[in-house]
Amino acid sequence: MTMEEHLRMPALRSRVMTAEEAAACIEDGMTVGISGFTRAGDAKVVPMALADRAKALGRPFHINLWTGASVAEEVDRTLTEAGVVARRLPFQSESTMRDAINRGDVMYVDQHLSLTVEMIREGTLGHLDVAVIEVVAITEDGYLVPSTSVGNAPTFAAHADKIILEWNKRQSPLLEGIHDIYMPHARPNRAPIPILSVDSRIGTPYIPVDPKKIVAIVPTDREDHFVELAPPDADTERIAGHLMDFLSHELKRGRLPSPLPPLQSGVGSVANAVLAGMKDTRFDGLVMYSEVLQDAVFELMDAGKLRYASGCAITVAPHNAKRIMNNLQAYQSRMVLRPQEISNHPEVIRRLGVIAMNTALEVDIYGNVNSTHVLGTHIMNGIGGSGDFARNALLSIFMTKSTAKGGRISSIVPMVSHVDHTEHDVDVVVTEQGIADLRGLAPRERVSRIIEHCAHPMYREMLWDYVKIAAKYGGHTPHALEQAFAWHLRYRDVGDMRQDVT
Amino acid sequence: MTMEEHLRMPALRSRVMTAEEAAACIEDGMTVGISGFTRAGDAKVVPMALADRAKALGRPFHINLWTGASVAEEVDRTLTEAGVVARRLPFQSESTMRDAINRGDVMYVDQHLSLTVEMIREGTLGHLDVAVIEVVAITEDGYLVPSTSVGNAPTFAAHADKIILEWNKRQSPLLEGIHDIYMPHARPNRAPIPILSVDSRIGTPYIPVDPKKIVAIVPTDREDHFVELAPPDADTERIAGHLMDFLSHELKRGRLPSPLPPLQSGVGSVANAVLAGMKDTRFDGLVMYSEVLQDAVFELMDAGKLRYASGCAITVAPHNAKRIMNNLQAYQSRMVLRPQEISNHPEVIRRLGVIAMNTALEVDIYGNVNSTHVLGTHIMNGIGGSGDFARNALLSIFMTKSTAKGGRISSIVPMVSHVDHTEHDVDVVVTEQGIADLRGLAPRERVSRIIEHCAHPMYREMLWDYVKIAAKYGGHTPHALEQAFAWHLRYRDVGDMRQDVT
Repeated sequence: MTMEEHLRMPALRSRVMTAEEAAACIEDGMTVGISGFTRAGDAKVVPMALADRAKALGRPFHINLWTGASVAEEVDRTLTEAGVVARRLPFQSESTMRDAINRGDVMYVDQHLSLTVEMIREGTLGHLDVAVIEVVAITEDGYLVPSTSVGNAPTFAAHADKIILEWNKRQSPLLEGIHDIYMPHARPNRAPIPILSVDSRIGTPYIPVDPKKIVAIVPTDREDHFVELAPPDADTERIAGHLMDFLSHELKRGRLPSPLPPLQSGVGSVANAVLAGMKDTRFDGLVMYSEVLQDAVFELMDAGKLRYASGCAITVAPHNAKRIMNNLQAYQSRMVLRPQEISNHPEVIRRLGVIAMNTALEVDIYGNVNSTHVLGTHIMNGIGGSGDFARNALLSIFMTKSTAKGGRISSIVPMVSHVDHTEHDVDVVVTEQGIADLRGLAPRERVSRIIEHCAHPMYREMLWDYVKIAAKYGGHTPHALEQAFAWHLRYRDVGDMRQDVT
Repeated sequence: MTMEEHLRMPALRSRVMTAEEAAACIEDGMTVGISGFTRAGDAKVVPMALADRAKALGRPFHINLWTGASVAEEVDRTLTEAGVVARRLPFQSESTMRDAINRGDVMYVDQHLSLTVEMIREGTLGHLDVAVIEVVAITEDGYLVPSTSVGNAPTFAAHADKIILEWNKRQSPLLEGIHDIYMPHARPNRAPIPILSVDSRIGTPYIPVDPKKIVAIVPTDREDHFVELAPPDADTERIAGHLMDFLSHELKRGRLPSPLPPLQSGVGSVANAVLAGMKDTRFDGLVMYSEVLQDAVFELMDAGKLRYASGCAITVAPHNAKRIMNNLQAYQSRMVLRPQEISNHPEVIRRLGVIAMNTALEVDIYGNVNSTHVLGTHIMNGIGGSGDFARNALLSIFMTKSTAKGGRISSIVPMVSHVDHTEHDVDVVVTEQGIADLRGLAPRERVSRIIEHCAHPMYREMLWDYVKIAAKYGGHTPHALEQAFAWHLRYRDVGDMRQDVT
């Protein structure tokens, strides 16, 4: 396609320039908000050029970096290596950046993904200087057509002083029309968000902006930097199996309607494998109200199982990306991409009664969930949207394999070393061992369900030993505080949570 | 007033009977839902008669007891002493019941207060046999006019097989018209909740029921069993002072609008004292979107500071109760009582942008809050509505005195022994020492704010000592897991968190 077809506001064509020229607009000390959610639709070449610029300057050069969620690994890595990022929010998942965060070199503000834009509007996160947003087109009015994600881009565009666009010619032009951009009014005079079902369209197919703020348009053909998911294995298949049995059972008991309520599926291999597991069930007419649309979404659509998917980003494995993007006309009428504020909004999640399926790092015997911190100290990625969904879902499910590191770590522990989701927000826990339905149970009643149904057999006796010691101290939630983290300490100090190894 | 004026559906008058006769409808093994929220508007005489009936039977007799929140202390105590309660939800605050819960004799399901009714509708809490609801009147159509609280009564009435009414002649007839009863549709076809401001009325002034389900009407003149709040002291006045300074400062910086967004104030002496502290400020035209309306609400109305209050219960100290209830005509046009699902609904709290002010039991150096569990094991009351508000508020504030038990307990600790509210849901912490604004800060940045502004000076050095040890292990959220609960263990074992005492 030509520039005329993509950059439809003629006055803007004079602002086409290189990434290096655009990056020169960004000064030391600025706050920069870039598009991107789960490595989809992220600004790519301008941040990379900024890293080069900072290195070439030969003096300290720092920015605050705001995104939707994770962006291309090379972007976070290159910026981190150049020492450019002083502060990062609200989510990331890249290893170099993660190490810098865990060293305390980057101040990382790990947020519920629906909330960042509220804080920007209230002015409590400070001023946004520059927004860098990937687009597939600019309309006649200078409005922006995003690419494979929406994320926080609409709010970044509304609040930044200057806007830099990455016009990505490699992204499919069929993405135009897939987005539904809606921004709630500023409080206190806010109307209800009028989404009544997953396919409600309530906004515009573009991001409205003041075109005078667009200072640069950078043509690029850099692809989204997707990564392969670990393939399903025997354990993830068992997790999917337990979950499907449970949902079928709930349906039979009349505790879930048919077709099922909208599904939300977390990010990553386990979540994707479990969702893909629905292909071989009798569930039909499925719909999703989710955050990221991963590979399984398209598999379910191809299989005729999934009627409609609402998300805020399309993130698929490289080996699937070309096929899906070249075939978008088959999907575009059955999906919508929304701002993450809306895809993750408590109001809509609660109204629609979503079934939320998220992954846990560890779960304790009372059903508290740690999604983020290894050994309570080192962050993996961040809480992401899991809190937005788990708190407001009709049914909040957390999934994990019962062990990690070849059995040296038990995912079921006496007390989680960090709490992201309290027992109040966790209805069901699933591992390859089985499923624990915790709804309506007191903490003491949850213990046997979790140990017997979810823990790996080699850890069950150790868990019961802890329960016995904790019982000495009594309470609504019995714990022996001197022993609560003994497993984590054993892993930290000798590399194995099991007792007989030490 | 006469029976004709109160029981306006003549056919129902034949169902008037004694509490003992009504209690005979309740059988062993049943689930009973009684009205009541924070000791207001609770069923009183029928539960007491049930305890007598159970004792007289001389054999095991158990019920599952559902309420709105806490009920009269004598009700929970008497039922507990009679061994009647097998399971209790979603909140309580009575000491005999608390002990039974902490011994494991009563299974207590501590829930977010907006969520119980969703689970009842979905059928996941089991079947409700009998509802016992206090009313001030029954309409011509057999509909119910509740008294000083709404709580979960509308949903109990809709789902129970049988309804027993306590017709309380002592409650003010001026309560009629104060309620606004709205129940969201069952999902998945639910409409937005049409509340656009604190004074929106969206329902009916009565609870619609099928009058055929009403099996008994028990006349009573038992008063609400309110308790006195601890009077404001120097510490609560300092907490209020810090908070007022902070809000004024935010207003000046343009980060809060004027008049202030709707206020929510938690339950208890500290919350009441802080709210009362607004009397002597320049804040005008205040409004509340809260759960319980305590004494300070009426003081602020009397002082012309508070324009409108939305809540789900009126709970005031006995020395104020008569004056307020006899003077209801001065308040009734300026307040509304809603079902707790609506007063605490995430959708409305987020839309209105509420300033949430709740109390903490302990707070850690990263801003995680424990609201419920003493030493991580023994529950005090329950999470109540604090989670409904904190997660969805425009500004989530937690308040506590910096020490308890004469200084032997520090409310600021290295790691909270139980997590009710994660750092993501805690914007501001206030103690009598000062205020810590944590918004937009990484965990490591929160530490100095919390220690220097909130901790008691005699604990600050000990906290910094912990920070130094934790730094050895690094991470986004540094902790030394072997030391994390050392303070709690010292208190448990020697009665003092301070080192030099041991």
